[in-house]
Amino acid sequence: MRSFWLCLILVFSGFVATAQTNKIDDSLNIRKIYDMSLLNGKSYSWLDHLSNEIGGRLSGSYGAEQAVEYTKAELEKLGLDKVWLQPVMVPKWTRGEREFAYIQTGPGATRNINITALGGSVATPEGGTKAEIIEVQGIEHLKEYGRENIEGKIVFYNRPMRADHIQTFEAYGGCVDQRYSGAKEAAKYGAVGVIVRSMNLRMDDFPHTGSMSYGDLPVNQRIPAAAVSTNDAEYLSSLLKIQNDLEVYFRLNCEQHEDVQSYNVIGEITGSEFPEEIMVVGGHLDSWDLGDGSHDDGAGVVQSMEVLRLFKETGYTPKRTIRVVLFMNEENGLRGGNKYAEVAASKGEDHIFALESDAGGFTPRGFGITATDAQYSKILSWKELFKPYLIHYFERGGGGADISPLEGGNTVLAGLRPDSQRYFDYHHAANDTFDKVNKRELELGAATMASLMYLVDKYGMENISNETTEMPD
Amino acid sequence: MRSFWLCLILVFSGFVATAQTNKIDDSLNIRKIYDMSLLNGKSYSWLDHLSNEIGGRLSGSYGAEQAVEYTKAELEKLGLDKVWLQPVMVPKWTRGEREFAYIQTGPGATRNINITALGGSVATPEGGTKAEIIEVQGIEHLKEYGRENIEGKIVFYNRPMRADHIQTFEAYGGCVDQRYSGAKEAAKYGAVGVIVRSMNLRMDDFPHTGSMSYGDLPVNQRIPAAAVSTNDAEYLSSLLKIQNDLEVYFRLNCEQHEDVQSYNVIGEITGSEFPEEIMVVGGHLDSWDLGDGSHDDGAGVVQSMEVLRLFKETGYTPKRTIRVVLFMNEENGLRGGNKYAEVAASKGEDHIFALESDAGGFTPRGFGITATDAQYSKILSWKELFKPYLIHYFERGGGGADISPLEGGNTVLAGLRPDSQRYFDYHHAANDTFDKVNKRELELGAATMASLMYLVDKYGMENISNETTEMPD
Repeated sequence: MRSFWLCLILVFSGFVATAQTNKIDDSLNIRKIYDMSLLNGKSYSWLDHLSNEIGGRLSGSYGAEQAVEYTKAELEKLGLDKVWLQPVMVPKWTRGEREFAYIQTGPGATRNINITALGGSVATPEGGTKAEIIEVQGIEHLKEYGRENIEGKIVFYNRPMRADHIQTFEAYGGCVDQRYSGAKEAAKYGAVGVIVRSMNLRMDDFPHTGSMSYGDLPVNQRIPAAAVSTNDAEYLSSLLKIQNDLEVYFRLNCEQHEDVQSYNVIGEITGSEFPEEIMVVGGHLDSWDLGDGSHDDGAGVVQSMEVLRLFKETGYTPKRTIRVVLFMNEENGLRGGNKYAEVAASKGEDHIFALESDAGGFTPRGFGITATDAQYSKILSWKELFKPYLIHYFERGGGGADISPLEGGNTVLAGLRPDSQRYFDYHHAANDTFDKVNKRELELGAATMASLMYLVDKYGMENISNETTEMPD
Repeated sequence: MRSFWLCLILVFSGFVATAQTNKIDDSLNIRKIYDMSLLNGKSYSWLDHLSNEIGGRLSGSYGAEQAVEYTKAELEKLGLDKVWLQPVMVPKWTRGEREFAYIQTGPGATRNINITALGGSVATPEGGTKAEIIEVQGIEHLKEYGRENIEGKIVFYNRPMRADHIQTFEAYGGCVDQRYSGAKEAAKYGAVGVIVRSMNLRMDDFPHTGSMSYGDLPVNQRIPAAAVSTNDAEYLSSLLKIQNDLEVYFRLNCEQHEDVQSYNVIGEITGSEFPEEIMVVGGHLDSWDLGDGSHDDGAGVVQSMEVLRLFKETGYTPKRTIRVVLFMNEENGLRGGNKYAEVAASKGEDHIFALESDAGGFTPRGFGITATDAQYSKILSWKELFKPYLIHYFERGGGGADISPLEGGNTVLAGLRPDSQRYFDYHHAANDTFDKVNKRELELGAATMASLMYLVDKYGMENISNETTEMPD
């Protein structure tokens, strides 16, 4: 009996000792990752090139093509095991000549307003569209007004993002239907165009573009759709309170083309112990065309590349296969994300984890996580390790659009959650530019991502019952 | 016996019910505070005036005088119980004509560098100072070089802020001795001036001023001191690697005057139950003269004013006396903070709590807290209430310079801790301007401060053993 107890004590001590050693190792390795990112990071200079040398990267554009070539070349310099392009056909939509709009404020008197075509919109008829404008607070109000009040008019969707949401993505979620489906729905009531208040919490002069869809609306019923800046939305709304038969003119010159060839850019460190277990880290390479897409999603692209570089530079050899995927066409089609998942499924690949950064290059706060209870608990057990870096947010739910097609099966999805307060100041607008990204914030994000990837790689997402015992708090 | 148990159960149920009701009340009241700040806040428009209509507010300047008048007038509009000015004599230092400096890069060839006089520096002799420059990595290295290498030269302190500190105030703390005491120490080795690398983690062209002191150095031994931008510090350093007898010219036109009359601005809601228990919330009204002091500390000023307005507007009647104090002269003397504490002591006032916001108007993360174990535990028990607002940081240590003279006795000190990554991009430089402050971030800070003030007011900082039982997690 005594030997049994002795045995148990020894085994237990062994566990505790291993756990302690692991904890110290992890702590040191994570410190190394942060130091490397902050002292000798590459993310910021990559972003400088992507933003200032290449610029906007809408799918099918020359910018997108250059971004594919540049990031592939940079990944090849990192000494990864494999770098390749994954072909994917993408939609091509072009803005054409700059949009123009004005309010007819009186006889012979007009005032210009700042608009931008929504991505996927048809053009106005040549010479533009001029019509009475009617303000509504959302799609659900069209019915109240009815065809008799809407037919022949431009519908002005003016429901603002709610300032009282602490997480600004919730405010976005509460409004974006106006942008995405507003034209399709207004067309059903005979509207001749829609102008949508920009998805922006701030009052300024930048119109914010973004994707919209006509669904299955026949081509001849499609109406042009534009976003208007928040300042001009307020101005227009205040004029409408005085004069409700106000006319607005707008002209869009955009065009939808045939699909074109493009690529996801992929790089990989093959796992040393479990090469068949794949972990993805990524962002999307395409951006809207107005700014240079520094926050959306240049930041996510360079942070994802940096994760692999940080592993290399800190001398960490991953057990599992670590893949950076720079997805094409997140903004207006998600073709890259879908293609990646489709190829993965057809090859029977086992993706145990996918992490996306697509919420801007701001100070990281933590992660949103889509996982089983056990997997989530395991991730939570690592929370203490992030405390020195002020990373505290580990909540359920989240991932990212590009990795969402991997959902189901066994794949844990995670999304980096940076501070979101300023994200919609720049999102899809001409002011989403390099100068809006703070070097340190970007680098902290990359290190935070690399640290989570490191822990998932080291402890895996399987065999939870065994491994969590090695990571006590 | 049965009646004893029944009694105990009833008493216990009563406690639990009260605790539950309190928790719901608190949750709702805090939500009201955040909603009011985000939907109908005043902080941003106050800051707009302070920054754009008044501008820089260095102690003794016309701007400082205007700021006193403006904030007093605004506090008077809030319907507080008392608003008054507390007289305090402050130092007056003026920059004079803009500074100028160049490096003699070769015979007849010069390159200008961006410098600014440190606050409190003497001027250079008329016509400026030109001398060989010697680079050192900190005060502690002066000894190694010795008088033989330093005498007659300008000392260039170039130890950078460490990028690997996650909390940037730690990086600042590791360097600021060069700025504060660099001139005093170099003078002892016969230096004729000092140029200090700006306390800035970013590479840019803005020189950052800040306070310096000659200590008890005789007036005739005082040497002029300036800060140089990080870009120019790097440039100068790289030139010195090639040519170590490089000469630099600089001219400062600053001047120290007699002390002048100024004021702390104070407003108060007198407590309804415990008027003798005073809680202070404040920031400092003065700023450096280069920018408009929006982050340092316009933000703290308007957030502190907003705390009292939020109480009023949400209909909360504080039990304790809530005082907003807008301190004068934090930047170069702390006379306002010292005066406030001196008057409080002379009146025998009981300050149970003081909260300062002086770390920029960025997204709030939580608080640094100087308190006893029991007081700290009590504050920690409220942490859950802040979770919906992404406020997670409740660490020991901290407060603020202005409230620090209140330390000792029974006063709990707390400092708002906003995200610090961008703070030193703007700190004491010409780019600390209104456009660098995000409205939502500022408003979230004000609401976070008001929420903590509300809880301290409601539950007090005394009688901890009784009251914590009412606040289970």
